[in-house]
Amino acid sequence: APEETPKPTRVQELHVYEINERDRGSPAVLKLSQKPVNSLGDLVPFSNKIYSGDLEKRLGITAGLCVLIQHVPEKKGDRYEAIYSFYFGDYGHISVQGQYLTYEDTYLAVTGGSGIFEGVTGQVKLRQLVFPFKLFYTFYLKGISDLPKELVNGKPVTPSPSVEPSPAAKATEPHATIPNFTN
Amino acid sequence: APEETPKPTRVQELHVYEINERDRGSPAVLKLSQKPVNSLGDLVPFSNKIYSGDLEKRLGITAGLCVLIQHVPEKKGDRYEAIYSFYFGDYGHISVQGQYLTYEDTYLAVTGGSGIFEGVTGQVKLRQLVFPFKLFYTFYLKGISDLPKELVNGKPVTPSPSVEPSPAAKATEPHATIPNFTN
Amino acid sequence: APEETPKPTRVQELHVYEINERDRGSPAVLKLSQKPVNSLGDLVPFSNKIYSGDLEKRLGITAGLCVLIQHVPEKKGDRYEAIYSFYFGDYGHISVQGQYLTYEDTYLAVTGGSGIFEGVTGQVKLRQLVFPFKLFYTFYLKGISDLPKELVNGKPVTPSPSVEPSPAAKATEPHATIPNFTN
Repeated sequence: APEETPKPTRVQELHVYEINERDRGSPAVLKLSQKPVNSLGDLVPFSNKIYSGDLEKRLGITAGLCVLIQHVPEKKGDRYEAIYSFYFGDYGHISVQGQYLTYEDTYLAVTGGSGIFEGVTGQVKLRQLVFPFKLFYTFYLKGISDLPKELVNGKPVTPSPSVEPSPAAKATEPHATIPNFTN
Repeated sequence: APEETPKPTRVQELHVYEINERDRGSPAVLKLSQKPVNSLGDLVPFSNKIYSGDLEKRLGITAGLCVLIQHVPEKKGDRYEAIYSFYFGDYGHISVQGQYLTYEDTYLAVTGGSGIFEGVTGQVKLRQLVFPFKLFYTFYLKGISDLPKELVNGKPVTPSPSVEPSPAAKATEPHATIPNFTN
Repeated sequence: APEETPKPTRVQELHVYEINERDRGSPAVLKLSQKPVNSLGDLVPFSNKIYSGDLEKRLGITAGLCVLIQHVPEKKGDRYEAIYSFYFGDYGHISVQGQYLTYEDTYLAVTGGSGIFEGVTGQVKLRQLVFPFKLFYTFYLKGISDLPKELVNGKPVTPSPSVEPSPAAKATEPHATIPNFTN
Protein backbone atom coordinates (compact mmCIF):
# COMPACT_ATOMS: atom_id res chain seq x y z
CA ALA A 1 0.00 0.00 0.00
CA PRO A 2 1.23 3.51 -0.73
CA GLU A 3 2.50 5.57 2.18
CA GLU A 4 0.64 8.74 3.00
CA THR A 5 2.70 11.77 2.05
CA PRO A 6 3.24 14.08 5.02
CA LYS A 7 1.32 17.25 4.37
CA PRO A 8 1.91 20.82 5.50
CA THR A 9 0.08 21.62 8.71
CA ARG A 10 -0.43 25.31 8.10
CA VAL A 11 -3.87 26.81 7.66
CA GLN A 12 -4.66 27.79 4.08
CA GLU A 13 -7.30 30.40 3.37
CA LEU A 14 -9.56 30.05 0.36
CA HIS A 15 -12.06 32.70 -0.64
CA VAL A 16 -15.18 31.84 -2.59
CA TYR A 17 -18.24 33.76 -3.72
CA GLU A 18 -21.55 31.91 -4.02
CA ILE A 19 -24.05 33.58 -6.30
CA ASN A 20 -27.60 32.64 -7.18
CA GLU A 21 -28.06 33.84 -10.75
CA ARG A 22 -31.66 32.63 -10.76
CA ASP A 23 -31.03 30.25 -13.66
CA ARG A 24 -30.78 26.92 -11.81
CA GLY A 25 -34.30 26.63 -10.38
CA SER A 26 -32.79 27.10 -6.94
CA PRO A 27 -33.70 27.13 -4.14
CA ALA A 28 -36.54 24.60 -4.08
CA VAL A 29 -38.53 25.69 -1.03
CA LEU A 30 -40.45 22.64 0.20
CA LYS A 31 -43.10 23.85 2.65
CA LEU A 32 -43.53 20.42 4.19
CA SER A 33 -44.39 21.89 7.59
CA GLN A 34 -47.64 23.07 5.96
CA LYS A 35 -47.49 26.16 8.17
CA PRO A 36 -47.73 29.72 6.86
CA VAL A 37 -44.56 30.86 8.65
CA ASN A 38 -41.21 29.15 8.07
CA SER A 39 -41.14 26.21 10.48
CA LEU A 40 -39.34 23.02 11.38
CA GLY A 41 -40.38 20.55 8.70
CA ASP A 42 -39.61 22.84 5.78
CA LEU A 43 -36.71 21.71 3.59
CA VAL A 44 -34.74 23.73 1.07
CA PRO A 45 -32.58 21.87 -1.47
CA PHE A 46 -30.35 24.32 -3.32
CA SER A 47 -27.53 24.70 -5.84
CA ASN A 48 -25.78 27.93 -6.77
CA LYS A 49 -22.71 29.01 -8.74
CA ILE A 50 -19.35 29.64 -7.12
CA TYR A 51 -16.60 32.01 -8.22
CA SER A 52 -13.04 32.66 -7.05
CA GLY A 53 -12.52 35.37 -4.44
CA ASP A 54 -11.22 37.77 -7.09
CA LEU A 55 -14.39 37.07 -9.12
CA GLU A 56 -12.25 36.39 -12.21
CA LYS A 57 -12.93 32.64 -12.42
CA ARG A 58 -16.01 30.47 -12.39
CA LEU A 59 -15.17 27.50 -10.17
CA GLY A 60 -18.29 25.40 -10.02
CA ILE A 61 -21.39 25.02 -7.90
CA THR A 62 -22.71 24.41 -4.43
CA ALA A 63 -25.18 21.56 -3.90
CA GLY A 64 -27.06 20.41 -0.86
CA LEU A 65 -29.84 20.81 1.62
CA CYS A 66 -30.96 23.39 4.17
CA VAL A 67 -33.18 22.05 6.95
CA LEU A 68 -35.30 24.80 8.44
CA ILE A 69 -34.87 24.61 12.22
CA GLN A 70 -36.77 27.62 13.51
CA HIS A 71 -38.14 30.99 12.60
CA VAL A 72 -36.52 33.70 14.71
CA PRO A 73 -39.06 36.53 14.80
CA GLU A 74 -36.92 38.93 16.86
CA LYS A 75 -34.30 38.76 14.10
CA LYS A 76 -36.86 38.67 11.31
CA GLY A 77 -35.03 35.64 10.01
CA ASP A 78 -34.54 31.90 10.19
CA ARG A 79 -32.13 29.27 11.46
CA TYR A 80 -31.23 26.47 9.07
CA GLU A 81 -29.05 23.41 9.44
CA ALA A 82 -27.04 23.41 6.22
CA ILE A 83 -25.49 20.27 4.73
CA TYR A 84 -23.80 20.86 1.37
CA SER A 85 -20.74 20.70 -0.80
CA PHE A 86 -18.63 23.07 -2.91
CA TYR A 87 -17.57 21.63 -6.28
CA PHE A 88 -14.36 22.81 -7.92
CA GLY A 89 -14.33 20.95 -11.26
CA ASP A 90 -11.37 18.60 -11.67
CA TYR A 91 -9.91 19.77 -8.36
CA GLY A 92 -12.59 17.96 -6.37
CA HIS A 93 -14.95 19.11 -3.65
CA ILE A 94 -15.34 20.21 -0.03
CA SER A 95 -18.30 19.12 2.14
CA VAL A 96 -19.53 21.32 4.99
CA GLN A 97 -22.16 21.27 7.73
CA GLY A 98 -23.38 23.82 10.24
CA GLN A 99 -25.76 26.63 10.94
CA TYR A 100 -26.99 29.07 8.33
CA LEU A 101 -28.66 32.05 9.94
CA THR A 102 -30.33 34.46 7.54
CA TYR A 103 -29.50 37.40 9.86
CA GLU A 104 -25.92 36.75 10.97
CA ASP A 105 -22.53 35.45 9.81
CA THR A 106 -21.64 31.94 10.97
CA TYR A 107 -18.89 29.34 10.85
CA LEU A 108 -19.60 25.89 9.42
CA ALA A 109 -17.53 22.72 9.81
CA VAL A 110 -15.51 21.33 6.93
CA THR A 111 -16.40 17.63 7.12
CA GLY A 112 -14.26 16.25 4.28
CA GLY A 113 -13.30 16.50 0.65
CA SER A 114 -12.17 14.75 -2.51
CA GLY A 115 -9.41 15.28 -5.06
CA ILE A 116 -6.98 17.95 -3.88
CA PHE A 117 -9.24 18.35 -0.83
CA GLU A 118 -8.98 14.69 0.23
CA GLY A 119 -8.52 14.50 4.01
CA VAL A 120 -9.20 18.19 4.57
CA THR A 121 -10.31 19.50 7.96
CA GLY A 122 -11.13 22.98 9.17
CA GLN A 123 -13.97 25.43 9.12
CA VAL A 124 -15.48 28.05 6.85
CA LYS A 125 -16.84 31.50 7.59
CA LEU A 126 -20.12 32.27 5.84
CA ARG A 127 -20.83 35.93 5.23
CA GLN A 128 -24.11 36.97 3.72
CA LEU A 129 -24.10 39.91 1.33
CA VAL A 130 -27.52 39.83 -0.34
CA PHE A 131 -29.99 37.38 1.18
CA PRO A 132 -30.19 34.76 -0.22
CA PHE A 133 -28.42 35.49 -3.50
CA LYS A 134 -24.83 36.48 -2.69
CA LEU A 135 -22.57 34.96 -0.07
CA PHE A 136 -18.85 35.24 0.64
CA TYR A 137 -16.96 32.36 2.22
CA THR A 138 -13.53 32.17 3.78
CA PHE A 139 -12.32 28.62 4.20
CA TYR A 140 -9.65 27.84 6.78
CA LEU A 141 -8.26 24.52 5.55
CA LYS A 142 -5.76 22.12 7.07
CA GLY A 143 -4.23 18.78 6.18
CA ILE A 144 -3.93 19.32 2.44
CA SER A 145 -1.10 20.23 0.06
CA ASP A 146 -0.62 23.76 -1.22
CA LEU A 147 -3.72 24.89 -3.09
CA PRO A 148 -3.39 25.58 -6.85
CA LYS A 149 -2.37 29.15 -7.59
CA GLU A 150 -5.47 29.88 -9.65
CA LEU A 151 -7.59 29.25 -6.56
CA VAL A 152 -5.62 31.44 -4.18
CA ASN A 153 -3.45 33.91 -6.11
CA GLY A 154 -6.02 36.57 -6.90
CA LYS A 155 -6.71 39.23 -4.31
CA PRO A 156 -10.29 38.76 -3.10
CA VAL A 157 -12.71 41.50 -4.03
CA THR A 158 -13.90 43.25 -0.88
CA PRO A 159 -17.28 41.70 -0.08
CA SER A 160 -20.22 44.03 -0.65
CA PRO A 161 -23.79 43.66 -1.90
CA SER A 162 -22.86 45.06 -5.31
CA VAL A 163 -20.06 42.65 -6.27
CA GLU A 164 -20.46 40.85 -9.59
CA PRO A 165 -18.36 38.20 -11.30
CA SER A 166 -16.25 39.39 -14.22
CA PRO A 167 -18.19 39.16 -17.49
CA ALA A 168 -15.74 36.51 -18.73
CA ALA A 169 -16.29 34.36 -15.62
CA LYS A 170 -20.04 34.80 -15.83
CA ALA A 171 -19.89 33.72 -19.50
CA THR A 172 -17.62 30.78 -18.53
CA GLU A 173 -15.04 31.74 -21.14
CA PRO A 174 -12.23 29.18 -21.12
CA HIS A 175 -9.61 31.52 -19.62
CA ALA A 176 -12.09 32.45 -16.87
CA THR A 177 -12.88 28.95 -15.62
CA ILE A 178 -10.94 26.23 -13.85
CA PRO A 179 -10.40 22.83 -15.56
CA ASN A 180 -13.77 21.15 -16.14
CA PHE A 181 -15.53 23.61 -13.84
CA THR A 182 -18.62 22.04 -12.28
CA ASN A 183 -21.85 23.23 -13.83
CA ALA B 1 -0.25 32.18 6.60
CA PRO B 2 -0.45 31.25 10.28
CA GLU B 3 1.05 27.95 11.34
CA GLU B 4 -1.26 25.37 12.78
CA THR B 5 -0.69 25.02 16.50
CA PRO B 6 0.12 21.43 17.46
CA LYS B 7 -2.75 20.10 19.48
CA PRO B 8 -2.93 17.46 22.21
CA THR B 9 -3.67 14.02 20.81
CA ARG B 10 -5.43 12.63 23.82
CA VAL B 11 -9.09 11.68 23.77
CA GLN B 12 -11.33 14.13 25.63
CA GLU B 13 -14.70 12.99 26.91
CA LEU B 14 -17.65 15.36 26.83
CA HIS B 15 -21.02 14.48 28.33
CA VAL B 16 -24.21 16.06 27.04
CA TYR B 17 -27.90 15.56 27.73
CA GLU B 18 -30.38 16.18 24.92
CA ILE B 19 -33.90 16.87 26.13
CA ASN B 20 -37.07 17.51 24.18
CA GLU B 21 -39.08 19.87 26.37
CA ARG B 22 -41.93 19.91 23.84
CA ASP B 23 -41.65 23.66 23.30
CA ARG B 24 -39.80 23.77 19.97
CA GLY B 25 -42.34 22.11 17.68
CA SER B 26 -39.95 19.20 17.36
CA PRO B 27 -39.78 16.65 15.91
CA ALA B 28 -41.54 17.37 12.60
CA VAL B 29 -42.57 13.93 11.45
CA LEU B 30 -42.93 14.07 7.66
CA LYS B 31 -44.80 10.95 6.55
CA LEU B 32 -43.62 11.26 2.97
CA SER B 33 -43.65 7.49 2.46
CA GLN B 34 -47.46 7.76 2.68
CA LYS B 35 -47.47 4.38 4.39
CA PRO B 36 -49.21 3.68 7.71
CA VAL B 37 -46.12 2.12 9.28
CA ASN B 38 -42.82 4.01 9.56
CA SER B 39 -41.05 3.42 6.24
CA LEU B 40 -38.17 4.53 4.06
CA GLY B 41 -39.30 7.87 2.65
CA ASP B 42 -40.32 9.35 5.99
CA LEU B 43 -38.16 12.26 7.17
CA VAL B 44 -37.89 13.73 10.65
CA PRO B 45 -36.29 17.16 11.06
CA PHE B 46 -35.70 17.90 14.74
CA SER B 47 -34.19 20.33 17.23
CA ASN B 48 -33.92 19.79 20.97
CA LYS B 49 -32.19 21.45 23.93
CA ILE B 50 -28.83 20.32 25.25
CA TYR B 51 -27.47 20.53 28.78
CA SER B 52 -24.11 19.81 30.38
CA GLY B 53 -23.55 16.32 31.77
CA ASP B 54 -24.04 17.60 35.33
CA LEU B 55 -27.34 19.16 34.20
CA GLU B 56 -26.31 22.48 35.76
CA LYS B 57 -25.87 24.41 32.50
CA ARG B 58 -27.94 24.95 29.41
CA LEU B 59 -25.54 24.67 26.48
CA GLY B 60 -27.62 25.06 23.39
CA ILE B 61 -29.52 22.94 20.92
CA THR B 62 -29.31 20.06 18.51
CA ALA B 63 -30.47 20.60 14.91
CA GLY B 64 -30.74 18.28 11.97
CA LEU B 65 -32.47 15.52 10.14
CA CYS B 66 -33.35 11.88 10.77
CA VAL B 67 -33.95 9.80 7.64
CA LEU B 68 -36.15 6.82 8.39
CA ILE B 69 -34.40 3.76 6.94
CA GLN B 70 -36.54 0.87 8.08
CA HIS B 71 -39.08 -0.27 10.58
CA VAL B 72 -37.71 -3.14 12.66
CA PRO B 73 -40.79 -5.04 13.85
CA GLU B 74 -38.88 -7.64 15.91
CA LYS B 75 -37.46 -4.76 17.98
CA LYS B 76 -40.69 -2.77 17.90
CA GLY B 77 -38.62 0.15 16.72
CA ASP B 78 -37.00 1.93 13.82
CA ARG B 79 -33.63 2.55 12.21
CA TYR B 80 -32.81 6.13 11.26
CA GLU B 81 -29.83 7.68 9.53
CA ALA B 82 -29.17 10.77 11.66
CA ILE B 83 -27.36 13.86 10.35
CA TYR B 84 -27.22 16.69 12.87
CA SER B 85 -25.19 19.14 14.90
CA PHE B 86 -24.77 20.10 18.55
CA TYR B 87 -24.56 23.87 19.15
CA PHE B 88 -22.63 25.21 22.14
CA GLY B 89 -23.22 28.99 21.93
CA ASP B 90 -20.01 31.00 21.45
CA TYR B 91 -17.92 27.84 21.74
CA GLY B 92 -19.06 26.59 18.33
CA HIS B 93 -20.57 23.31 17.19
CA ILE B 94 -19.98 19.62 16.51
CA SER B 95 -21.53 17.82 13.51
CA VAL B 96 -22.29 14.09 13.66
CA GLN B 97 -23.67 11.34 11.42
CA GLY B 98 -24.64 7.75 11.97
CA GLN B 99 -27.34 5.36 12.98
CA TYR B 100 -30.08 6.18 15.46
CA LEU B 101 -31.90 3.03 16.55
CA THR B 102 -34.93 3.61 18.74
CA TYR B 103 -34.27 0.33 20.59
CA GLU B 104 -30.51 0.28 21.15
CA ASP B 105 -27.51 2.49 21.99
CA THR B 106 -25.28 3.38 19.06
CA TYR B 107 -22.09 5.23 18.16
CA LEU B 108 -22.18 8.03 15.62
CA ALA B 109 -19.27 9.62 13.76
CA VAL B 110 -18.05 13.10 14.62
CA THR B 111 -17.67 14.64 11.16
CA GLY B 112 -16.34 18.09 12.05
CA GLY B 113 -16.84 21.21 14.09
CA SER B 114 -16.40 24.96 14.39
CA GLY B 115 -14.99 27.34 17.00
CA ILE B 116 -13.22 25.41 19.75
CA PHE B 117 -14.29 22.23 17.92
CA GLU B 118 -12.60 23.20 14.63
CA GLY B 119 -10.81 20.16 13.19
CA VAL B 120 -12.33 17.73 15.68
CA THR B 121 -12.53 14.00 14.94
CA GLY B 122 -13.89 11.11 16.95
CA GLN B 123 -17.15 9.46 17.75
CA VAL B 124 -20.07 9.84 20.13
CA LYS B 125 -22.04 7.28 22.07
CA LEU B 126 -25.80 7.84 21.98
CA ARG B 127 -27.73 6.42 24.90
CA GLN B 128 -31.48 6.65 24.92
CA LEU B 129 -33.20 7.24 28.27
CA VAL B 130 -36.78 8.12 27.38
CA PHE B 131 -37.71 7.64 23.74
CA PRO B 132 -37.59 10.12 22.07
CA PHE B 133 -37.38 12.82 24.70
CA LYS B 134 -34.21 12.24 26.72
CA LEU B 135 -30.83 11.14 25.44
CA PHE B 136 -27.38 11.02 26.98
CA TYR B 137 -24.27 11.42 24.82
CA THR B 138 -20.63 10.74 25.53
CA PHE B 139 -18.34 12.34 22.99
CA TYR B 140 -14.84 10.98 22.48
CA LEU B 141 -13.04 13.90 20.85
CA LYS B 142 -9.57 14.21 19.36
CA GLY B 143 -7.53 16.88 17.64
CA ILE B 144 -8.71 19.86 19.68
CA SER B 145 -7.30 21.89 22.57
CA ASP B 146 -8.38 21.32 26.15
CA LEU B 147 -12.11 21.84 26.48
CA PRO B 148 -13.34 24.75 28.65
CA LYS B 149 -13.76 23.79 32.30
CA GLU B 150 -17.45 24.66 32.35
CA LEU B 151 -18.07 21.99 29.74
CA VAL B 152 -16.13 19.21 31.45
CA ASN B 153 -15.63 19.99 35.12
CA GLY B 154 -18.99 18.91 36.49
CA LYS B 155 -19.48 15.27 37.38
CA PRO B 156 -22.10 13.87 34.98
CA VAL B 157 -25.40 12.91 36.53
CA THR B 158 -25.89 9.15 36.23
CA PRO B 159 -28.14 8.68 33.19
CA SER B 160 -31.66 7.52 34.05
CA PRO B 161 -35.15 8.18 32.72
CA SER B 162 -35.92 10.54 35.59
CA VAL B 163 -33.06 13.01 35.19
CA GLU B 164 -34.02 16.67 34.87
CA PRO B 165 -31.97 19.80 34.27
CA SER B 166 -31.46 22.05 37.28
CA PRO B 167 -34.26 24.62 37.55
CA ALA B 168 -31.73 27.40 36.92
CA ALA B 169 -30.47 25.74 33.73
CA LYS B 170 -34.02 25.08 32.56
CA ALA B 171 -34.84 28.74 33.18
CA THR B 172 -31.61 29.76 31.38
CA GLU B 173 -30.51 31.93 34.28
CA PRO B 174 -27.24 33.66 33.38
CA HIS B 175 -25.09 31.66 35.83
CA ALA B 176 -26.62 28.44 34.46
CA THR B 177 -25.84 28.97 30.77
CA ILE B 178 -22.68 29.14 28.70
CA PRO B 179 -21.80 32.38 26.83
CA ASN B 180 -24.47 33.14 24.24
CA PHE B 181 -25.97 29.67 24.59
CA THR B 182 -27.70 28.61 21.39
CA ASN B 183 -31.47 28.79 21.59
CA ALA C 1 -7.80 10.54 30.13
CA PRO C 2 -6.47 7.85 27.81
CA GLU C 3 -3.77 8.86 25.33
CA GLU C 4 -4.56 8.53 21.68
CA THR C 5 -2.64 5.64 20.18
CA PRO C 6 -0.53 6.74 17.22
CA LYS C 7 -2.00 5.19 14.12
CA PRO C 8 -0.42 4.16 10.84
CA THR C 9 -0.53 6.92 8.26
CA ARG C 10 -0.63 4.74 5.20
CA VAL C 11 -3.62 4.62 2.89
CA GLN C 12 -5.68 1.44 3.20
CA GLU C 13 -7.88 0.35 0.34
CA LEU C 14 -11.24 -1.24 1.03
CA HIS C 15 -13.46 -2.63 -1.72
CA VAL C 16 -17.21 -2.86 -1.28
CA TYR C 17 -20.10 -3.81 -3.54
CA GLU C 18 -23.47 -2.13 -3.00
CA ILE C 19 -26.39 -4.09 -4.41
CA ASN C 20 -30.08 -3.28 -4.48
CA GLU C 21 -31.82 -6.63 -4.27
CA ARG C 22 -35.22 -4.97 -4.48
CA ASP C 23 -36.29 -6.33 -1.09
CA ARG C 24 -35.85 -3.25 1.10
CA GLY C 25 -38.42 -0.88 -0.43
CA SER C 26 -35.52 1.22 -1.66
CA PRO C 27 -35.11 3.77 -3.10
CA ALA C 28 -38.03 5.92 -1.96
CA VAL C 29 -38.32 8.46 -4.76
CA LEU C 30 -40.00 11.55 -3.31
CA LYS C 31 -41.12 13.75 -6.23
CA LEU C 32 -41.40 16.83 -4.06
CA SER C 33 -40.47 19.13 -6.95
CA GLN C 34 -43.86 18.18 -8.43
CA LYS C 35 -42.26 18.41 -11.88
CA PRO C 36 -42.45 15.64 -14.49
CA VAL C 37 -38.68 15.60 -15.06
CA ASN C 38 -36.23 14.96 -12.20
CA SER C 39 -35.63 18.36 -10.63
CA LEU C 40 -34.16 20.13 -7.63
CA GLY C 41 -36.65 19.50 -4.83
CA ASP C 42 -36.85 15.75 -5.38
CA LEU C 43 -35.37 13.66 -2.56
CA VAL C 44 -34.37 10.01 -2.60
CA PRO C 45 -33.84 8.22 0.73
CA PHE C 46 -32.26 4.82 0.14
CA SER C 47 -30.77 1.74 1.78
CA ASN C 48 -29.07 -1.14 -0.01
CA LYS C 49 -27.01 -4.20 0.91
CA ILE C 50 -23.22 -4.21 0.92
CA TYR C 51 -20.85 -7.10 0.28
CA SER C 52 -17.09 -7.55 0.50
CA GLY C 53 -15.06 -6.91 -2.64
CA ASP C 54 -14.64 -10.65 -3.21
CA LEU C 55 -18.43 -11.01 -2.90
CA GLU C 56 -17.97 -13.82 -0.38
CA LYS C 57 -19.29 -11.93 2.66
CA ARG C 58 -22.36 -9.91 3.42
CA LEU C 59 -21.17 -6.88 5.38
CA GLY C 60 -24.22 -4.78 6.03
CA ILE C 61 -26.13 -1.93 4.44
CA THR C 62 -25.92 1.59 3.15
CA ALA C 63 -28.36 4.18 4.51
CA GLY C 64 -28.92 7.78 3.64
CA LEU C 65 -30.27 10.44 1.36
CA CYS C 66 -29.74 11.58 -2.23
CA VAL C 67 -30.75 15.17 -2.94
CA LEU C 68 -31.54 15.65 -6.61
CA ILE C 69 -29.57 18.70 -7.77
CA GLN C 70 -30.22 18.81 -11.50
CA HIS C 71 -31.26 16.82 -14.49
CA VAL C 72 -28.47 16.71 -17.06
CA PRO C 73 -30.21 16.14 -20.39
CA GLU C 74 -27.02 15.98 -22.49
CA LYS C 75 -25.91 13.02 -20.34
CA LYS C 76 -29.40 11.56 -20.09
CA GLY C 77 -28.84 11.47 -16.37
CA ASP C 78 -28.95 13.32 -13.08
CA ARG C 79 -26.70 14.94 -10.50
CA TYR C 80 -27.37 14.11 -6.87
CA GLU C 81 -25.78 15.29 -3.64
CA ALA C 82 -25.39 12.05 -1.69
CA ILE C 83 -25.16 11.93 2.12
CA TYR C 84 -25.00 8.41 3.51
CA SER C 85 -23.22 5.80 5.57
CA PHE C 86 -21.87 2.28 5.09
CA TYR C 87 -22.61 -0.07 8.02
CA PHE C 88 -20.26 -2.96 8.77
CA GLY C 89 -21.98 -4.75 11.69
CA ASP C 90 -19.90 -4.82 14.87
CA TYR C 91 -16.99 -3.15 13.08
CA GLY C 92 -18.80 0.18 12.91
CA HIS C 93 -19.57 2.55 10.05
CA ILE C 94 -18.18 5.05 7.55
CA SER C 95 -20.07 8.24 6.61
CA VAL C 96 -19.57 9.84 3.18
CA GLN C 97 -20.75 12.88 1.24
CA GLY C 98 -20.33 14.03 -2.33
CA GLN C 99 -21.68 13.92 -5.84
CA TYR C 100 -23.50 10.95 -7.31
CA LEU C 101 -23.80 11.29 -11.06
CA THR C 102 -25.91 8.63 -12.75
CA TYR C 103 -23.70 8.80 -15.88
CA GLU C 104 -20.14 8.97 -14.52
CA ASP C 105 -17.84 7.64 -11.78
CA THR C 106 -17.13 10.07 -8.94
CA TYR C 107 -15.18 10.46 -5.72
CA LEU C 108 -16.97 11.19 -2.46
CA ALA C 109 -15.51 12.47 0.80
CA VAL C 110 -15.18 10.21 3.81
CA THR C 111 -16.50 12.46 6.59
CA GLY C 112 -16.03 10.21 9.61
CA GLY C 113 -16.71 6.83 11.15
CA SER C 114 -17.33 4.79 14.26
CA GLY C 115 -15.88 1.63 15.77
CA ILE C 116 -12.77 0.53 13.89
CA PHE C 117 -13.41 3.48 11.56
CA GLU C 118 -13.35 6.09 14.36
CA GLY C 119 -11.34 9.13 13.21
CA VAL C 120 -11.10 7.96 9.60
CA THR C 121 -10.42 10.40 6.77
CA GLY C 122 -10.05 9.91 3.05
CA GLN C 123 -12.19 9.51 -0.01
CA VAL C 124 -14.07 6.80 -1.86
CA LYS C 125 -14.38 6.11 -5.58
CA LEU C 126 -17.93 5.27 -6.67
CA ARG C 127 -18.19 3.18 -9.81
CA GLN C 128 -21.59 2.41 -11.23
CA LEU C 129 -22.13 -1.01 -12.80
CA VAL C 130 -25.89 -1.28 -13.26
CA PHE C 131 -27.83 1.90 -12.64
CA PRO C 132 -29.05 2.12 -9.91
CA PHE C 133 -28.76 -1.42 -8.64
CA LYS C 134 -25.06 -2.33 -8.55
CA LEU C 135 -22.19 -0.14 -7.51
CA PHE C 136 -18.54 -0.82 -6.73
CA TYR C 137 -16.65 1.33 -4.22
CA THR C 138 -12.96 1.66 -3.50
CA PHE C 139 -12.30 3.41 -0.22
CA TYR C 140 -8.94 5.11 0.37
CA LEU C 141 -8.79 5.34 4.15
CA LYS C 142 -6.31 7.04 6.47
CA GLY C 143 -5.89 7.51 10.19
CA ILE C 144 -7.12 4.09 11.31
CA SER C 145 -5.48 0.87 12.44
CA ASP C 146 -5.01 -2.08 10.11
CA LEU C 147 -8.37 -3.25 8.82
CA PRO C 148 -9.58 -6.75 9.80
CA LYS C 149 -8.40 -9.43 7.41
CA GLU C 150 -11.92 -10.54 6.52
CA LEU C 151 -12.58 -7.09 5.11
CA VAL C 152 -9.45 -6.82 2.99
CA ASN C 153 -7.96 -10.27 2.40
CA GLY C 154 -10.13 -11.46 -0.44
CA LYS C 155 -9.18 -10.48 -3.97
CA PRO C 156 -11.93 -8.17 -5.28
CA VAL C 157 -14.03 -9.57 -8.08
CA THR C 158 -13.44 -7.52 -11.23
CA PRO C 159 -16.36 -5.09 -11.41
CA SER C 160 -18.84 -5.83 -14.18
CA PRO C 161 -22.60 -5.58 -14.62
CA SER C 162 -23.00 -9.33 -14.16
CA VAL C 163 -21.33 -9.74 -10.76
CA GLU C 164 -23.40 -11.46 -8.07
CA PRO C 165 -22.73 -12.16 -4.38
CA SER C 166 -21.88 -15.78 -3.53
CA PRO C 167 -25.06 -17.73 -2.74
CA ALA C 168 -23.85 -18.15 0.87
CA ALA C 169 -23.36 -14.40 1.29
CA LYS C 170 -26.71 -13.66 -0.30
CA ALA C 171 -28.32 -16.15 2.10
CA THR C 172 -26.38 -14.59 5.01
CA GLU C 173 -25.04 -17.96 6.11
CA PRO C 174 -22.96 -17.50 9.27
CA HIS C 175 -19.60 -18.22 7.60
CA ALA C 176 -20.48 -15.73 4.86
CA THR C 177 -21.23 -12.73 7.08
CA ILE C 178 -19.19 -10.51 9.38
CA PRO C 179 -20.01 -10.36 13.12
CA ASN C 180 -23.52 -9.00 13.63
CA PHE C 181 -23.70 -7.82 10.02
CA THR C 182 -26.04 -4.86 9.66
CA ASN C 183 -29.37 -5.73 8.13
